Amino acid sequence: MIFPFTAIVNQEEMKLGLILNVIDPSIGGLLIMGEKGTAKSTTVRALADLLPEIEVVKGCRFNCDPSGPFCIECLEKKERVEVLETEKKKMEVVELPLGVTEDRVVGTIDIEYAISYGKRKFEPGLLAKANRNFLYIDEVNLLEDHIVDLLLDSAAMGINRVEREGISFFHPARFILIGSMNPEEGELRPQLLDRFGLCVEVKALTEKVLRKEILKRKIEFDTSPERFLEKWKPEQERLSEKIVQAKKLLPEVKVSEEIYEIIVTLTSQLSLDGHRGDIVLLKAAKAYSAFNQKGLVEKEDLTRVALFSLRHRLKRLPFEDPEAEVKKLYELLSIL
Amino acid sequence: MIFPFTAIVNQEEMKLGLILNVIDPSIGGLLIMGEKGTAKSTTVRALADLLPEIEVVKGCRFNCDPSGPFCIECLEKKERVEVLETEKKKMEVVELPLGVTEDRVVGTIDIEYAISYGKRKFEPGLLAKANRNFLYIDEVNLLEDHIVDLLLDSAAMGINRVEREGISFFHPARFILIGSMNPEEGELRPQLLDRFGLCVEVKALTEKVLRKEILKRKIEFDTSPERFLEKWKPEQERLSEKIVQAKKLLPEVKVSEEIYEIIVTLTSQLSLDGHRGDIVLLKAAKAYSAFNQKGLVEKEDLTRVALFSLRHRLKRLPFEDPEAEVKKLYELLSIL
Amino acid sequence: MIFPFTAIVNQEEMKLGLILNVIDPSIGGLLIMGEKGTAKSTTVRALADLLPEIEVVKGCRFNCDPSGPFCIECLEKKERVEVLETEKKKMEVVELPLGVTEDRVVGTIDIEYAISYGKRKFEPGLLAKANRNFLYIDEVNLLEDHIVDLLLDSAAMGINRVEREGISFFHPARFILIGSMNPEEGELRPQLLDRFGLCVEVKALTEKVLRKEILKRKIEFDTSPERFLEKWKPEQERLSEKIVQAKKLLPEVKVSEEIYEIIVTLTSQLSLDGHRGDIVLLKAAKAYSAFNQKGLVEKEDLTRVALFSLRHRLKRLPFEDPEAEVKKLYELLSIL
Amino acid sequence: MIFPFTAIVNQEEMKLGLILNVIDPSIGGLLIMGEKGTAKSTTVRALADLLPEIEVVKGCRFNCDPSGPFCIECLEKKERVEVLETEKKKMEVVELPLGVTEDRVVGTIDIEYAISYGKRKFEPGLLAKANRNFLYIDEVNLLEDHIVDLLLDSAAMGINRVEREGISFFHPARFILIGSMNPEEGELRPQLLDRFGLCVEVKALTEKVLRKEILKRKIEFDTSPERFLEKWKPEQERLSEKIVQAKKLLPEVKVSEEIYEIIVTLTSQLSLDGHRGDIVLLKAAKAYSAFNQKGLVEKEDLTRVALFSLRHRLKRLPFEDPEAEVKKLYELLSIL
Amino acid sequence: MIFPFTAIVNQEEMKLGLILNVIDPSIGGLLIMGEKGTAKSTTVRALADLLPEIEVVKGCRFNCDPSGPFCIECLEKKERVEVLETEKKKMEVVELPLGVTEDRVVGTIDIEYAISYGKRKFEPGLLAKANRNFLYIDEVNLLEDHIVDLLLDSAAMGINRVEREGISFFHPARFILIGSMNPEEGELRPQLLDRFGLCVEVKALTEKVLRKEILKRKIEFDTSPERFLEKWKPEQERLSEKIVQAKKLLPEVKVSEEIYEIIVTLTSQLSLDGHRGDIVLLKAAKAYSAFNQKGLVEKEDLTRVALFSLRHRLKRLPFEDPEAEVKKLYELLSIL
Amino acid sequence: MIFPFTAIVNQEEMKLGLILNVIDPSIGGLLIMGEKGTAKSTTVRALADLLPEIEVVKGCRFNCDPSGPFCIECLEKKERVEVLETEKKKMEVVELPLGVTEDRVVGTIDIEYAISYGKRKFEPGLLAKANRNFLYIDEVNLLEDHIVDLLLDSAAMGINRVEREGISFFHPARFILIGSMNPEEGELRPQLLDRFGLCVEVKALTEKVLRKEILKRKIEFDTSPERFLEKWKPEQERLSEKIVQAKKLLPEVKVSEEIYEIIVTLTSQLSLDGHRGDIVLLKAAKAYSAFNQKGLVEKEDLTRVALFSLRHRLKRLPFEDPEAEVKKLYELLSIL
Repeated sequence: MIFPFTAIVNQEEMKLGLILNVIDPSIGGLLIMGEKGTAKSTTVRALADLLPEIEVVKGCRFNCDPSGPFCIECLEKKERVEVLETEKKKMEVVELPLGVTEDRVVGTIDIEYAISYGKRKFEPGLLAKANRNFLYIDEVNLLEDHIVDLLLDSAAMGINRVEREGISFFHPARFILIGSMNPEEGELRPQLLDRFGLCVEVKALTEKVLRKEILKRKIEFDTSPERFLEKWKPEQERLSEKIVQAKKLLPEVKVSEEIYEIIVTLTSQLSLDGHRGDIVLLKAAKAYSAFNQKGLVEKEDLTRVALFSLRHRLKRLPFEDPEAEVKKLYELLSIL
Repeated sequence: MIFPFTAIVNQEEMKLGLILNVIDPSIGGLLIMGEKGTAKSTTVRALADLLPEIEVVKGCRFNCDPSGPFCIECLEKKERVEVLETEKKKMEVVELPLGVTEDRVVGTIDIEYAISYGKRKFEPGLLAKANRNFLYIDEVNLLEDHIVDLLLDSAAMGINRVEREGISFFHPARFILIGSMNPEEGELRPQLLDRFGLCVEVKALTEKVLRKEILKRKIEFDTSPERFLEKWKPEQERLSEKIVQAKKLLPEVKVSEEIYEIIVTLTSQLSLDGHRGDIVLLKAAKAYSAFNQKGLVEKEDLTRVALFSLRHRLKRLPFEDPEAEVKKLYELLSIL
Repeated sequence: MIFPFTAIVNQEEMKLGLILNVIDPSIGGLLIMGEKGTAKSTTVRALADLLPEIEVVKGCRFNCDPSGPFCIECLEKKERVEVLETEKKKMEVVELPLGVTEDRVVGTIDIEYAISYGKRKFEPGLLAKANRNFLYIDEVNLLEDHIVDLLLDSAAMGINRVEREGISFFHPARFILIGSMNPEEGELRPQLLDRFGLCVEVKALTEKVLRKEILKRKIEFDTSPERFLEKWKPEQERLSEKIVQAKKLLPEVKVSEEIYEIIVTLTSQLSLDGHRGDIVLLKAAKAYSAFNQKGLVEKEDLTRVALFSLRHRLKRLPFEDPEAEVKKLYELLSIL
Repeated sequence: MIFPFTAIVNQEEMKLGLILNVIDPSIGGLLIMGEKGTAKSTTVRALADLLPEIEVVKGCRFNCDPSGPFCIECLEKKERVEVLETEKKKMEVVELPLGVTEDRVVGTIDIEYAISYGKRKFEPGLLAKANRNFLYIDEVNLLEDHIVDLLLDSAAMGINRVEREGISFFHPARFILIGSMNPEEGELRPQLLDRFGLCVEVKALTEKVLRKEILKRKIEFDTSPERFLEKWKPEQERLSEKIVQAKKLLPEVKVSEEIYEIIVTLTSQLSLDGHRGDIVLLKAAKAYSAFNQKGLVEKEDLTRVALFSLRHRLKRLPFEDPEAEVKKLYELLSIL
Repeated sequence: MIFPFTAIVNQEEMKLGLILNVIDPSIGGLLIMGEKGTAKSTTVRALADLLPEIEVVKGCRFNCDPSGPFCIECLEKKERVEVLETEKKKMEVVELPLGVTEDRVVGTIDIEYAISYGKRKFEPGLLAKANRNFLYIDEVNLLEDHIVDLLLDSAAMGINRVEREGISFFHPARFILIGSMNPEEGELRPQLLDRFGLCVEVKALTEKVLRKEILKRKIEFDTSPERFLEKWKPEQERLSEKIVQAKKLLPEVKVSEEIYEIIVTLTSQLSLDGHRGDIVLLKAAKAYSAFNQKGLVEKEDLTRVALFSLRHRLKRLPFEDPEAEVKKLYELLSIL
Repeated sequence: MIFPFTAIVNQEEMKLGLILNVIDPSIGGLLIMGEKGTAKSTTVRALADLLPEIEVVKGCRFNCDPSGPFCIECLEKKERVEVLETEKKKMEVVELPLGVTEDRVVGTIDIEYAISYGKRKFEPGLLAKANRNFLYIDEVNLLEDHIVDLLLDSAAMGINRVEREGISFFHPARFILIGSMNPEEGELRPQLLDRFGLCVEVKALTEKVLRKEILKRKIEFDTSPERFLEKWKPEQERLSEKIVQAKKLLPEVKVSEEIYEIIVTLTSQLSLDGHRGDIVLLKAAKAYSAFNQKGLVEKEDLTRVALFSLRHRLKRLPFEDPEAEVKKLYELLSIL
């Protein structure tokens, strides 16, 4: 049984970062930087548990959305049958183990089989399981670079295409990529850092009253999980419904010329590589606005999500205080 | 034949750390730090030998508890038969060899077989053997990180789930994880350190009278093991019974508001990452209280187990005496 | 759907470097050096998308040009049939993953099959797919040397020949090689640097008005790609046509004696290894001239392309300012 | 043909260390530290050659002792036949090559075979050959740690148990472990050092008269081995008989309270990890006493074997003369 | 189509070094040291293209010379037929890829086949292809030592003999070994350096008039290769004929006592390892003399080839100017 | 065709070292230390070529001596037939390639075959070929330690025994081990150095008259090998006969008490590890005496071979002139 998302004490940044990605998956994932023992993995599992079931093509190994895009198998099935049957599924958190191989991630084509029986046979990898789910990488900074690369590419393309010796297979691979890392144990290359949509920092809580609350809720949950879940049910349903509504509202959210101006004024004063920061900032602000059931982006929406969107993209300039750019960002935000 | 647990001279910390984990396995294991030749592995084996037999589903390769949780095979059997037969088994110490592979730990699915015969065939790994037993890792600091990770994950989840190419298998994997290490031969990453429930330090005894006692008992045991075991039998049975009673009493142990307050007052004054320390401290105190046949946690229960629970989670702050936080813990405990 | 090439804001150097290679592929590829998030890969894909379809031998796995050169399979087919059927194909960007093996690049011969059935069976590699397309290597400086070597050799030869135990296979491998790299993450050996025809540097734009334009276009495209593409269609067609015309004009472009003199006067004053710089400079100038629908190379054509052609071939002299030679090149160009 | 043990000139320490282990194998092996060319391996082979044949179960691949313990095969045979036939065998020196694999050491189970024929098939490893023999590791400090570990574990347990995928096999593995090393070529981890029962140092002899004797005996042996063996036969038989008697006498040797007191007084004044030193010292003294046909341990027996038993367990204290503890041991022994 | 050898501007050292090896292959190959972009590989291919076709045993996989030595297959055929049929073949440049394996170089014996059919089956390697051709190794200093070793051994023996499990195969392996390297990218072990017969250094040309000529010829060739080849045909045929004549004349070239005296006077004043320098110097002088259609070696022939033959064999003496020995060689040559 | 041994100019040390090993193979091989280009490998091949053919059991894959010791196959044949047929064979130089594997050295047992057909099938390794021949290792200091170890063990034992899973095979492996190394390219561990019987140093000759002689003979040989061999035939036969006689005489050579005294007086004054030096010195002196057709060892025989036998065994004492011990040896020899 899973600890309820809404019963997690504090850690608002991490929770909001996750929710914004659920509302608009094109934001591009979340990197959670923080010390050990801060329930990072628990929080992700808790959110997946809270969300409503998704509708998938019945029997599809890739959780294809009945309204597309489709995997090659669903495409073929659609030609044979008129209507694809559907079923409901709980969302999952697919975890990427350290030391995972490329084949395990993308899946493999069984060439022998293809040659013998004239039919494609695809052994799905973790990306197949991850479609329309969460893909969680603990200690992403300890993973091999080419695997991280591959995951970020798949996340960006939304499709996983495997080709071996003329035989090819594809399936949608749209997932919310969550990475966690402890910066004390090694860094992530800036190239990779930049490709995570948002980035939050988490710390253990030091206020006694909060610590006590955490301790009590944990012991309460461990002692009798059923009773605890029952107690938190209304809170859980409220949040779940709020997220569902935000997803519906998102395409309607408006952006004024002034908001565009504020964004580029902000980012052009910072040492940022490329333009991904601008785009993510705007998308996150739109999602945040939708989460608050508003129809347009306002300045305070930007302020709320600017840190998540930009901080990990700020350069560390040589011969300067490594935090100089972060301070500048804070100043710029304070006078927004 | 195994040297009796109760005949082990001194080393009270290590012995208590083991016993608390037996009383409440959710404490999360024990890390024994100490020099060579201090009978670490012998002590673990001795405790396993002392404990009463456990009841398992007859013929189950995973030692499933007849009252669940069940492995996939027992689940299937339960649908066919009305009542699962049971048998009694001695607890075992499963040892993890250095250089062990992931497959050897988690087991493997024989894909060929599955395809040819249409039936899952699972070759159990060390986690299967370890279910409801002790899993002992000597020199845990020399083991590869991703294996330690995997073990700690399994220990935390209580289940071992193996999936290969669409075929999946699972069995409960609830074990008491005991690691030993000699800190002179390399450290353990703080990330991993934190995930061991308790941590004790052991040293060889220097008092002559104790050394002589150890020497005599060892020679006495080597010369005639049967006679030695006979002599220690009453002591062994007394301890065994005390542990059995403590396990029964544990769910009844009460925790007052004051105890909660003391815990967070203590931990919020220390440099601790996360909240695992608070939780383990409380659980260990409850188990200790039950071991002493008490119905509630008292201040002295906390004092007794605080070192085990917190010391390995204290941060070494840069530019400070590495032992500064440990000293602070001692001070805080002394004025509790 | 792909973002239109002509809608990419600014980045004229990178766009021109790509176009010149399309006009004259014997220029030898392009190396894009620049920070992350500057849409390097997007730009290459966008150009491929803009170009007209190519005509290929129908069913050929190597996209053979119906007017040759041919792969071994087309050669054999030509002996059997009178006229090879043709079909149209969109150009592709073949991407080279990090950690790719030699076999995956060049393809393999299935010896077993050849022996059993007396027929060559070739499993095409990435070079087969790349024929007459773009071959894109992200982070080329992180690729293993021998793979880069192999790619540059194939690019130089225009053919991929695989031999295993007396069985041989060949196909044309004429592709435009595009490498990208972030110089902050490691260098490329000068040996390899020199073998890329042109080299450009890209940076993120800092002017607010440009940033805003980028942001708006991206959001506009993301919101409704179809409408956006419709809007940019005329611009796209204009550029496509211009490139097609330049390719036709290229063989007619004249080079005067004075132009030869200027080139060698320029290069003999610089620390350049070998003569490749001279040759590429002249070819790029010819292509640029053709792109501007001119029949002869003029001094300003040289000035426009000299930096692309020479900068990455300048030596870093020991004990001198690393940028000394680059400054000299700027000076020499300014007085041309 | 093998050079006779008794004809080996001098090197009394090494010879005694070997003999004590033969008398009481529970002492736990011998580590020989010394320079090259000091006939370490020759001496071990010579001792094995001198000892009387052992009685084994006829045809047993593990040299099982007819009075047990038994390998799984002998156990099964015992159920079918009434009396196990026996045969005599010369003792062997099994040598462990550098670079040996774990499978080669412990043996392997042929899973294919087991599945196809329903019968266990075990391919014995070096431990099988070593049962009741000598296991010699030249340059033990160059062997991989996990192999040394495995050998020391087997030596300590006296059994080799191999399990693969549910099939298990076991056989006794009681051997005298002899390691040799040249300390100039790398150290052994203290963890491993401690687990060798005794440790001796050997040096080449520098006295001319001894060197000449060595040279003459070697040339004499090389010229006519048969004659040389004949000449040394009585001496060989005398020693062989003395060892046989000592083994018989050993269980009768008494230890007074005073001897216990002396041991712990000695060891508690030294920097020793653990208690293994105390135990080995007493066992070696008992074996030495038996070798001299005495019924009780006396102070001089301790003095004779204390260096072998303790020196390699002394810690090198930081910031102190590395030999300080050894000197202290000498002093303590001199005033015993 | 290949750029004509005689149209290569300047680079006389490299061209002569190649030609001398063609005239007398026992000189032992050529090492070309030089910066990138100096057409090293192009020049070798151009020379191979210029040389007349060689006569080979028809169908022989090893290009056996009809007058021997023969491969094992030709030897067997000769016993069956009276006269071996012959055919003409163009000489080839076999290139050794970086990262090549030993099996790929020497070929392999198919043991399975040999056992099943009782016939040797040899899969030829690169040495088979190289027989009587050029073997070109680009960046020889980056190749693994044991491969370079193997190549130099084969070159020295003139035969490639492969043995596996009692089955053996051999074929002549007489090739002209050409290595190239950029000394800025790592050195070659002196051991290997010494085994290349000759060594030349190449640099890009800096004179404007030569650079212009190179540029013009290249553009002329690229624009219309057929016309260019036609223009250079007479020059090509003249050189080809001159080389053919030199090969015929070589055995007749005389060496006077004075020439011997000059050689050893020269070499005994230099720091040279071994005697290979003396021998190569004389052979190169003889080949040079034959190239100039002379019947005897004269002092100026030695002067012309001394640098090629000796420079790479001069030792770098410790604590001396690394070029001291080279200067001494220049001085000694100037007063010859 | 092979250059005649007797035509090799100078290099008396290396030639004598080889000859002494041929006369008494129990000396234990020769290590040649010297710079490149000093014909080390040529000299070994030349000596093998000079020696008379050996008599072997007809068809034996291990060149078994008809008077034993025998390989397992010859032993089995001897039981079936009365007399083993014999044949004559030229001695060979078996060369050990760098990077050789253990299996290639010792051979392998084909387990599959053994199981299927119930017969041992042994694929011989290089040790099989080397029996009764020369085993030459070029650049022995670059070989992996465990291979050198294995070779030295085999050389010491005179037998190669291979065991795999209960199947065993053995054959004699008595060869003359010749290693060469260039000390500038890395050292050999003292452990291994000590196990080569003799050690010589070679240098290129610097005297002009000798260099000229080498050059002339080489050119003479290259020009017409047959004539050259004819010319040196008498000299070759004389040496061959001298060696044959020496082998016969060897067992008769006497050693006086004085000679023993001189040897140990010498060696006990030097820093030598172990006693191997004493033994080799005496054996080499005996062989040298026999080579000079004398019946007893004299002081000058010792003087002649002392350097070869001892120099590589002298220790380099810390904080002393590395050559100090060598100088002492020279002094001691000069006053002998």
